[in-house]
Order: sequence, then C-alpha cells, then structure tokens
Amino acid sequence: MEKTLRELAQMIAGSVIGDPEARITGIKSFEEAGHSDLVLVSQAKFLKEASESIAGAFLVGEELVVKGRNMLRVSNPKLAFATVLRLFHPPESLQSGVHPTAYVDDSAVVHPSARVGAFVYVGPGCSLGGGCQIFPGTVLLRDVSVGAETTIFSNVSIYSKVEIGSGTIIHAGSVIGSDGYGFVFDGQQHVKIPQVGGVKIGNQVEVGANCCIDRATLGVTEVRDGVKLDNFVHIGHNCVVGEHSLLVAQVGLSGGTRLGKFVTLAGQVGTNPHIEIGDGTVVMAKSGVSKSLSPHSTVSGMPPIEHHRWIRSQIIYARLPEIYQALKDLQEEVERLKQERTNGAD
Amino acid sequence: MEKTLRELAQMIAGSVIGDPEARITGIKSFEEAGHSDLVLVSQAKFLKEASESIAGAFLVGEELVVKGRNMLRVSNPKLAFATVLRLFHPPESLQSGVHPTAYVDDSAVVHPSARVGAFVYVGPGCSLGGGCQIFPGTVLLRDVSVGAETTIFSNVSIYSKVEIGSGTIIHAGSVIGSDGYGFVFDGQQHVKIPQVGGVKIGNQVEVGANCCIDRATLGVTEVRDGVKLDNFVHIGHNCVVGEHSLLVAQVGLSGGTRLGKFVTLAGQVGTNPHIEIGDGTVVMAKSGVSKSLSPHSTVSGMPPIEHHRWIRSQIIYARLPEIYQALKDLQEEVERLKQERTNGAD
Amino acid sequence: MEKTLRELAQMIAGSVIGDPEARITGIKSFEEAGHSDLVLVSQAKFLKEASESIAGAFLVGEELVVKGRNMLRVSNPKLAFATVLRLFHPPESLQSGVHPTAYVDDSAVVHPSARVGAFVYVGPGCSLGGGCQIFPGTVLLRDVSVGAETTIFSNVSIYSKVEIGSGTIIHAGSVIGSDGYGFVFDGQQHVKIPQVGGVKIGNQVEVGANCCIDRATLGVTEVRDGVKLDNFVHIGHNCVVGEHSLLVAQVGLSGGTRLGKFVTLAGQVGTNPHIEIGDGTVVMAKSGVSKSLSPHSTVSGMPPIEHHRWIRSQIIYARLPEIYQALKDLQEEVERLKQERTNGAD
Repeated sequence: MEKTLRELAQMIAGSVIGDPEARITGIKSFEEAGHSDLVLVSQAKFLKEASESIAGAFLVGEELVVKGRNMLRVSNPKLAFATVLRLFHPPESLQSGVHPTAYVDDSAVVHPSARVGAFVYVGPGCSLGGGCQIFPGTVLLRDVSVGAETTIFSNVSIYSKVEIGSGTIIHAGSVIGSDGYGFVFDGQQHVKIPQVGGVKIGNQVEVGANCCIDRATLGVTEVRDGVKLDNFVHIGHNCVVGEHSLLVAQVGLSGGTRLGKFVTLAGQVGTNPHIEIGDGTVVMAKSGVSKSLSPHSTVSGMPPIEHHRWIRSQIIYARLPEIYQALKDLQEEVERLKQERTNGAD
Repeated sequence: MEKTLRELAQMIAGSVIGDPEARITGIKSFEEAGHSDLVLVSQAKFLKEASESIAGAFLVGEELVVKGRNMLRVSNPKLAFATVLRLFHPPESLQSGVHPTAYVDDSAVVHPSARVGAFVYVGPGCSLGGGCQIFPGTVLLRDVSVGAETTIFSNVSIYSKVEIGSGTIIHAGSVIGSDGYGFVFDGQQHVKIPQVGGVKIGNQVEVGANCCIDRATLGVTEVRDGVKLDNFVHIGHNCVVGEHSLLVAQVGLSGGTRLGKFVTLAGQVGTNPHIEIGDGTVVMAKSGVSKSLSPHSTVSGMPPIEHHRWIRSQIIYARLPEIYQALKDLQEEVERLKQERTNGAD
Repeated sequence: MEKTLRELAQMIAGSVIGDPEARITGIKSFEEAGHSDLVLVSQAKFLKEASESIAGAFLVGEELVVKGRNMLRVSNPKLAFATVLRLFHPPESLQSGVHPTAYVDDSAVVHPSARVGAFVYVGPGCSLGGGCQIFPGTVLLRDVSVGAETTIFSNVSIYSKVEIGSGTIIHAGSVIGSDGYGFVFDGQQHVKIPQVGGVKIGNQVEVGANCCIDRATLGVTEVRDGVKLDNFVHIGHNCVVGEHSLLVAQVGLSGGTRLGKFVTLAGQVGTNPHIEIGDGTVVMAKSGVSKSLSPHSTVSGMPPIEHHRWIRSQIIYARLPEIYQALKDLQEEVERLKQERTNGAD
C-alpha cells in the first residue's frame, strides 16, 4: 500500500501542508515511524516528539503546526486517523467459503458470501448473513441469526435464540445467551428458574473478548445499536443497554439493569438489579451503582455521589487520622475551658 | 404444548380460581402475554399491570387477587413458576449419541445415553454418566468424570483429574482445573509450584459462563452440592465452597478460602487467602473480605463491617467536606474562646 | 515413582535427618499423607500437625525440628517443595505429533517435536517451536510464533501477529491479541479505531485461565519475561508489564499502563490509562490506581495512599457514626460555652 499525501487528503477531506506528492507507506507511532510513515499528532504536547521524529508527514488538527514538515490537516484528526489506519490495515479476514472441517447443520441458511472457519459448529435453524465471518472454534447452537458483515471471532459460544445485527464484532471467548442467574429457594435448596428468553444484539455493536451476555428469563436481553463493550463485561438477564453506550472492562450489570443512550460505565463498575441509568450519564471507575441515576450526571462511589464531591471526600478520607486527632484535641480543649469556667465560678 | 389450568394446578399443587378449562399455551411476561398465556404476579405492586394485561391467567400467592380473572393460586408462586416454565420449555439438548466429529479416546467410558457434541474432545480415562451432555467445542483432558444428567455447555475446558457430580450444569467458556496461582521466589525469579491436586464439583451445582475453578496444589478444590456460581467467578486453589452457597458475578476467592453452607457473596466481592466465612453469612457487593467472618452475619466494606454500620458510615462519608469544614469552624471558635478568656484574665 | 530421602536430598541440596534409606512415594498434605509420603512444613505453626501426622518424612527449613522423625532439611523449603513436586508429577502433556483432527495451514512451520492437539487450528504463517504443546480446541490465527517448550492449554484464542516466548504457559480460555478498546466519536456514533499493532509475550511467563491481552493500536503490547498473571487478568492495548511482575486475579490494566519490574498488583486492582507504576511497588487488593506510583511503595485505596495510612483511615471510617456524633456534641458544648460567656457579660 502506498498513497501520496494528496490522495490521502482527498479521502479524509483534509488539506496538505508541504509536499502533496510525498509518499506514505504506513501509519506508525513516533518511535516506529520511518521516512515514509504518517504519524498522528493528537495534542500540542506531542509537538516536540513530532519535530524530533523522522516521520514523513503528520496528521494534525486545525491549530497544530510541526514547523517545516509535511502535514495533513483535518478538523477531526482522530477520526481521520481511524480512516487511514483502516485503509492501510484491512480487518482480519477468513478465506472465503465454509472451511471443510466446519459443521453446518442442514437446516441452517448460510449466505454464499459468508465465511465460516475451521471447527465452527452452526446448529439447526441458524442463519448467516452476507459477508459475515465466523472464526475457528465458534459454536452457534440453534436458531441463531447473524447479520450481514458481522464478525464473530474464535471460540465464541452462542446459545440458542440469539439475534445479532449487522456490522457487529464479537471478540474471542465471549458467551452470548447463557442462562441468567435465577433461583428460588424451596426451603432446602436453590431451585433453578429456567431462563427461556433470548438475547438481541444490535447493529454496529462491539463485544470485547471473554464477555458474558445472559439470556432473559422471559423476553429479551438487549444490547442496542452502536454499543461498545470492552473485555470481561457481564450483562445479566433482562438488561437493556441503550444505544451507543460504552461499558469499559470488567463492568458487571445485575439482572434487569436498564441503561439509557450514550451512558459510560468506567472499568469495574457494578450495578444493583433493576436500576435505571439515564441517558448520557457517566459512572466513574469501580463505582457501585446501588440506585437509579438521573440523565447526564457524573458520579463516583458506592452509593454513587456527584463526582467532584466524591473527590473531595476521598481527599479528606486520606486525612482521617489527622482529623480524628484534631477532634480529640478539640474535645480536650473544650473540656479544659469547661473546667476553667467551673473553677472560675468557685 | 397446551395445558388447562386444571392440569397445571395438579402439577404444582395449586387451586384454580376462575375457569379450570381455560387453555394455557405459554408462560410470558406482562408485556408479551396473549389470551392463552399464564403470567406470574410475584408481588402486590404488579397487580395493576396484571389487571391491564390481556393474559389468560395469573399465577399468584395466597394473598393476591386479580379481580375477575383466572388465577392459579399456590403457596410459593416463584417455585411453581419454575416448574411450569420447565414444562413449557425443556432444557437445551443435543441429539443423542456421539457426534461424528467428536473425538473420544479409546480408554474413555461413555454411557450409551450420554450425548457428545461436535468437536468435543474426551481424553484418556474419562467417564461420562448416563444422560449427560457435552456441548460442541468442549475439552475434557484426562481422567475427568462427569456424573449422570450433568450438562456441560460449549467451549468449556476441563483439565485432568476433575470430578463432576450429577445433575450439574457448567456454562460455556468456563475453565475447571487450571493451575492454582502458586510461585516461590528463588532470589531472581518466581518459580512455579506445580499444582498437582484436583477439583471436585458436587451434585446440582451450576457454574456460570466464563468461570475459573483452579485445581488444588495438593488435595482438592471443592465446590459442594447445590452451589450456584454466576458468571466470571474465580475460585482459587484449595478453596472449599460449602453446600448451597451463592456466588454472584465477578466474585473472586483467593487460594484456600473456605465458605460454609448457604453463604452469599454478592457481585465483585473478593476474599483474602485462607480465611473462613461462616454458614449463612451474606457479604454485600464489592466488599473485600480481609479476615474470617462468623456465621450468620451481614457485612459490607473492606475490611467488612456490620452492614448497617457501613451504610451509616457511607452516608457520613458523602458529607465529609461539610464535616471537615465544621471541624475547622469549631477549632476557630474554641481558639476565640481561649483568646477571650486570656484577654478577660488580663 | 519412588525415591529414598538420600536421593531426594541430593536433588535439592538438602541434608537428611533420620533414615536416609526411607522410601518416599509421594508428596502430600498433612491430611492425606501416608507412611511413605513427604510433607512440607513451611512454618513453625505447623509443627504440631506434623508431629501428629503419619507422614514418612518432612521437608523443613534450617530452624524447624519435628522431633524423632525423618526430615529433609534445606535452606528454602518452598523452593525444594516445587522441585520434588515436579519430580513426582510431570506436567500435563499431549501425545507427540500433530493430532489427526488438527488443522495446520501449509504455510505454518511446526517443529518436529511440537505437539498439537485435537481440533487445534494453526493458521498461515504460524511457527511452533521445539517441544511446545498446543492443547485441544486452541486457535492460532495468522503469523503467531510460539517459542520452544511453551504450553498453550485448551480453547485459547490467539489473533494474528502475536509473538510468544519460550518456556511460557498460557492457560485455557485466554484470549491474546483481540482489539484494544479504542473509538472516536464522530458526532453521532463511536467509530472504531483499528487496532493494528501486535502482542509480545516473553519467556517463562504464565498467563492464567480466561485472561485477555489486547493487541496494541500501533506498536506492541508487552508482557515481559517471568511475569505471572492469575486468572481473569485484563491487559489493555499498549500496556507494558515489566519483568517478573505478579498480577493477581481479576486485575485490569487500562490502555497504556506501564508497570516496572517486580511490581505486584493484588486481586481486583484497576488502573487508569497511561499511568506508570515503578519497580517493586505493591498495590493492595481492590485499589484503583488513578495516578502514577513511585518505585518500591506499598499502597491501597483509590486514589492509592500509603498502605498503613489507608488502614488507619479505614479503622476511623468504621467509626464515622460515633465521630460525627462527637463532633455534633462538641458543637453544642461550644455553643453553650459561648452562651454562658454572653450571659456572663450581661
């Protein structure tokens, strides 16, 4: 792959500063860049590194200048970066067709342009859309539908009655549609409540590696369009994750949690069952969401409180030994004052 | 599947209020229910939704009434719900026999009624009990015994010397018998302590998706009868999880933790190595159990303290900025009082 | 396997106290040991158990004595324990050669002494070193190199462009090289930033079960020589984990975290993106590392503070209800003193 700066500028609606005929053969980091590589300069603090780098050109926003060097200037450099990276690095793909070692049930419907890898199991009633890819070792049990241009990586386990949209990516080791955690005590033991609902995953979703999305008890667990899950995210039964929400690594949603649109849950956050989190709300790392949260709030802690208040509380928390001492000193002072008053009254 | 209310009532030792010949064709939620569906009304707060639903009948406890509608009345409606759900939705099952793509070692003993899915590997010395099911992509290395009527879902990895009881369910992606985390420092590097014990999982256990249960260093890591693990639970080497305990998602037990019977660990709880948690104790979400806990306590925090005390501390924690300010104000006041006293003494 | 104490003593540079011809047939725990078993006595507190055990001999350090019994004395008994355990229990191993059900791409290079299990997929451009073992169900996509004597257990998923050193162990269910969590918002949705870097895992590394190590956006995510990861560890894109660091179960490193050498992160610790943790630093369980940490510190909490200070704060935290009450009492006292003064001034 080789492109001139002029060609790249056309692709990303940018302008060239410097030599439009300069040839770009790769997108690299500062440390790795050679004379024909393009490097992203996302913030002013990287300008020094840029000027010391031998990179062939820099991808910059409106306000940044790497003096005397070739630049590609765009309004949103990170977005342009995503575009040119994809140009130079097409996504991982399988060979076309169904691998001879795969097993596809006779009743499954596989689009001719779908790609099915080695040792994949596609069970009865499944359907695979055009251009979708199922990587080696993945299992689709029964009545699983996979939309067009969706990619499911290796060793993913999908139970029955799971619907996956188009343009979605599911990373390796994830489990979709296993039973929700539901039991009822009969006086002697916990009896399983059968989990007979389904899972519905929207379009343009990304599910990280080793995630778990449980099937609903009744009805459907939903992960809506544009949601991005990091690794190790747990979605309990009957949850609804609203459009374009971001769930960072190791987040756990208890059963029945409902997230609005554009919610962000930072790493290791957990939620109580059946709470709601409003549109656009941000929950900071490790928080325990024990009650519903209104839209567009930014919170921390367990129970979550307004984030800046939490920060102030944390600072004081670290000083608790001194504060406790100060309180005891004050108690003594006051006691002395009282004594003196009593003595003075004698 | 179609049953009359009379037939269902017999099955769950309930009584019919309304038309005993009413036909039920499914169990649904309020939103999804049609004229021939049965809906659980577990609490009085759902009575309004019930009366507005077009469901054919309601499953209720002794004290609830949906006026003018067909009802199935039982003493424990959630338990009855589990029973009728199972009736209408038999569990996921494989075709009988061993799938032609599976690999079963010659020395393995497979009961004629066991079902083995595609691309399953059953290693030397393994034994599979009657009616057990091993779903596609699962690996049983060596000397693994699986009890009767146990189900192991897809892409599960079971190392050697693991014993699994009967009527147990292991969900997809779980790993049983990988090495415990044990190393000894030799002055330059961490040297592996071989983990040569086994794992024993009891009867009627449920292991969630993507769990990890490590083998013991010596001896056996035990998960006893009736234990229910949610997804992403980590059980370290040489742990013992007592009968009927519940471990919610993302709980981690360090090596050598011993839980009594009927212990509940809520989501994201962690434990220190070698502690004991007594029978019936409940540890609330995200707690860090750094010391042993007596039976029948309910605790929160790290180290865990009595739960209601923890709640009060959390409330005050959120007010620490004001409390700190109040303390500083008070210090000034006292200083003024002291000054005045000194001045007065002049 | 049977060895005399004399033979074992030679192997571990120890001395025999008692009968050098005593025969040892196994290494056991106190409870399980029979007359020909060797038991480790790692601390003085186990001496009573030792003297009551029927074990044939005890492995002890310089200062411990089990009166009247056979002993193997060494300077580092835990290290000697690791050695003799390995002697009696060779590691799990596959049959030699490539299993007939495995799929190995024509362009892959497999050393004659490598062992490849059932249903393993080895993609184009992969190379497997001498004596390495790939257990059933594992997938190596493309251009994956595996060093000599490395073992990869079952159902592991390795994406393309991953380099794994020699003498390394990767446990079942782990995912190496899935995409880092990187998106850019285009005003309407989160657009994926292609993750086109690689992963490099060093020599003598151990990766626990169900771990995730993400590939770099550009460049390489590194897990260096001698690092030991427990289960469920998440390593984000572009992290560097320094030599011989220990990451306990359920630790999560955000993208770009850099750990020095011999760092220890206890269970369920999380880190913010792009921070650095210095050599030899210990972060206690459940901490949230929100800022960089200097070398050789021991910290707790979020943000982390010096561990002993954190412990004192935690103790006071549990007393916050009483402290708050004391503060309110004091406020009243001071108010009274002020009133009296005012009254006295009248």
